Amino acid sequence: MALKDVVSGARNEAGIAAVLEVLKGALGEKFQTGRSFREQHSHTTTYLTTQLPDGVAFVENADDVKAVVKACAAHKVPVIPFGTGSSLEGQVNAPSGGISIDFSRMNRIIEVNAEDLDVTVEPGVTREQLNTYLRDTGLFFPIDPGANASIGGMASTRASGTNAVRYGTMKDNVLAVTAVTANGKEIRTGRRARKSSAGYDLTRLFVGAEGTLGVLTSVTLKLQGIPEKIAGGVCTFDSIKAACDAVIMTIQIGVPVARIELLDDVQIRACNAYSGLAYEEKPTLFVEFHGTEETTALQSQQFAEIVAEFGSTDFKWTGDAQERNKLWKARHDAYWASRALAPHLDGLSTDVCVPISRLADCVVETQQDIAENNMLAPIVGHAGDGNFHVLVLFDGKDPASVAKTEAFVARLNRRAIAVDGTCTGEHGIGQGKMSFLEEEAGNALDTMRAIKRSLDPDNIFNPGKLFRL
Amino acid sequence: MALKDVVSGARNEAGIAAVLEVLKGALGEKFQTGRSFREQHSHTTTYLTTQLPDGVAFVENADDVKAVVKACAAHKVPVIPFGTGSSLEGQVNAPSGGISIDFSRMNRIIEVNAEDLDVTVEPGVTREQLNTYLRDTGLFFPIDPGANASIGGMASTRASGTNAVRYGTMKDNVLAVTAVTANGKEIRTGRRARKSSAGYDLTRLFVGAEGTLGVLTSVTLKLQGIPEKIAGGVCTFDSIKAACDAVIMTIQIGVPVARIELLDDVQIRACNAYSGLAYEEKPTLFVEFHGTEETTALQSQQFAEIVAEFGSTDFKWTGDAQERNKLWKARHDAYWASRALAPHLDGLSTDVCVPISRLADCVVETQQDIAENNMLAPIVGHAGDGNFHVLVLFDGKDPASVAKTEAFVARLNRRAIAVDGTCTGEHGIGQGKMSFLEEEAGNALDTMRAIKRSLDPDNIFNPGKLFRL
Repeated sequence: MALKDVVSGARNEAGIAAVLEVLKGALGEKFQTGRSFREQHSHTTTYLTTQLPDGVAFVENADDVKAVVKACAAHKVPVIPFGTGSSLEGQVNAPSGGISIDFSRMNRIIEVNAEDLDVTVEPGVTREQLNTYLRDTGLFFPIDPGANASIGGMASTRASGTNAVRYGTMKDNVLAVTAVTANGKEIRTGRRARKSSAGYDLTRLFVGAEGTLGVLTSVTLKLQGIPEKIAGGVCTFDSIKAACDAVIMTIQIGVPVARIELLDDVQIRACNAYSGLAYEEKPTLFVEFHGTEETTALQSQQFAEIVAEFGSTDFKWTGDAQERNKLWKARHDAYWASRALAPHLDGLSTDVCVPISRLADCVVETQQDIAENNMLAPIVGHAGDGNFHVLVLFDGKDPASVAKTEAFVARLNRRAIAVDGTCTGEHGIGQGKMSFLEEEAGNALDTMRAIKRSLDPDNIFNPGKLFRL
Repeated sequence: MALKDVVSGARNEAGIAAVLEVLKGALGEKFQTGRSFREQHSHTTTYLTTQLPDGVAFVENADDVKAVVKACAAHKVPVIPFGTGSSLEGQVNAPSGGISIDFSRMNRIIEVNAEDLDVTVEPGVTREQLNTYLRDTGLFFPIDPGANASIGGMASTRASGTNAVRYGTMKDNVLAVTAVTANGKEIRTGRRARKSSAGYDLTRLFVGAEGTLGVLTSVTLKLQGIPEKIAGGVCTFDSIKAACDAVIMTIQIGVPVARIELLDDVQIRACNAYSGLAYEEKPTLFVEFHGTEETTALQSQQFAEIVAEFGSTDFKWTGDAQERNKLWKARHDAYWASRALAPHLDGLSTDVCVPISRLADCVVETQQDIAENNMLAPIVGHAGDGNFHVLVLFDGKDPASVAKTEAFVARLNRRAIAVDGTCTGEHGIGQGKMSFLEEEAGNALDTMRAIKRSLDPDNIFNPGKLFRL
């Protein structure tokens, strides 16, 4: 399935040839140009056309990164950072060729400061690797986008996930980065102090820039204490509206819910089938509370009272870890359960985010749209943030199915933008959502373009992503 | 007292004369050039030399702002946004003359979205005005920098204050701004959705830019539910170290303290004298908890156990509002109590912020520095963030006292920077801290400069602030 959005830029053949020579000499076996390496480092889902880089640099330290950037800057050749390749909008594709920087060997945990609740890591460290490493310190890194993504990739796409409602997104949890800029020098964007009013917020500029302004070489993250107690619960509602109203009241009252996930009836049906469960096929909220024995019990009681006001009388919760995993099984398996609804079809995961007062309407209209178009597309939402995902099951080999999917995604994005929402809450723009960013940002896109041109005048950093220059 | 940092730029006399003519015609009585108006719109504290603008535009809407920016852009004349004038580092000074934009008439609350916990306001709305307006909605805006500052000013200096430990800073609480850019057009940097991965984070770029990238015309803020219950408490420690260790453990365990303020012995002595109190003259923590009857009681008990581990056995707390105000009186009066220590002297309020593990050392070294130099300078810290203020009492008419103060401030800033802290946690750079930003940011300053040049090529927006171009 090829989206119209995918821009294939002109290739600078002479520059690319020159860079390949330079990097073969400079990096030796750390630089690979074989087709299988290049295929592994481009976008391999069916959603977007795969566009291969010309070489892959397995960098081991900041000097390697500088060597790649300097060679590419000298010859005006694209540089595409690559973490684990789990991005969903074509962020690691190479529409004009160039060099993919693979961070899997830059996966050291540089420094943990337990008293300050922070850690500095190389960009290739993955979320699970970090939390395994931290276990003995009593601390954890809360952002969980689902995939075992790299921290560099998560920072670059401003990732979030299920517990952003409590702990925020990467925007809120990155204290500083170091990055190699277009002149081949490394800058550091912030300090370990918890807050600062010292000049422009370069940290937040690099977070979410999708590698278009420079290449990260380290990320300093905030950590959280591992909660003494985690409680989990599930409840069903007669309507999406009732479920969303319960979420709004939960947030408004200030119950510090750690996760609050909405699954629609189609998603629940998929989960029942996949995991042998017997949930009622109704809009369902999965919640989690972090705290002590006492506070999680208090929060669960508060939540039970709230959902009862909106007609949900089947709220079950538990503080027992094993029981909680059982209650949450449907949510954990949601993606694979959806895919199993139609194993022969392709899956397109797309996300939008709206003000939570508009979430119910937006989800219901989207469900109607899906039904009217005879589509199969379960919905899962990070309801506390107004963020929801639609997994469209479609046939990538059938042009009509592709066209229908594209048209649906366009309507979904415009529906979100129309209610002052955004075309992506956490997947980023990449190649897939460039036209929607244009609609959403309006003339603010000129400001983004001006920044891009000033920091990357030759457009070497991940070109063909975010916006057309 | 004049700091070396204050740059007096060249004045574009012909351009200024032309703009004065244009704006007199365009804005009528909304444009004033009388000396008293101009004096009110420059920095009037004794810390920095006052530098007057050439005219003051009392803008009433975004079109007025555009008119000023377009005239100033056409003639390359400085534009200096002015909220309430409570900034502390010379942010509203006009080192090259130009036009001050006064926002006191742009003080409308544009839209409250209670269900989404957000509000959009014009930049001249003050913090107290906003909270008075919101009272009936059950919501409040938590950021409290002390002064009754304007929201536009607070956004522009990335302000925070006592309860940032729980609610974050302006960086965390601004969802979007609209701003007039150098081409005279208005952009909007974000949406009302709680999170977004759609392109560069322009919101965070304008927050803290101190008016150097454009002029804000509206700010969309996150709101919080007014807590059902607020509990407050006080306790003393034998050492700064013990107090800071208690703070670290409180944060690490995840007690959601809303405020946690550290006053040193000199500050307590000042408070006792000023408010007729009889606190022990020891390092003291003032805390506040927000929640329900039950959760604030739980938190207070948890906190009592923590401080006891660090030798503090006199923790007093209360859920009664009147009693709480009594307990907190010393903290509330801290600034005026300090000034009253030496009413004939001037006061310089400066702030730095360090990783909290370094807070105790940094405060103790600063106290030693103060003692060794025979200075009078109480210390108050937002301890949960590692942010502290020193109020230096000095004689602005005595060059030796001024020189000693300057040297002390320089040592304080370098001390913070040396431990991976920042030269300002919440006051901003303005004119006063330009040399320290240079030391702190290193070559990242080149990135800031590139952004400034790209968005404001003629350097019309608040020139002579943040850094030298």
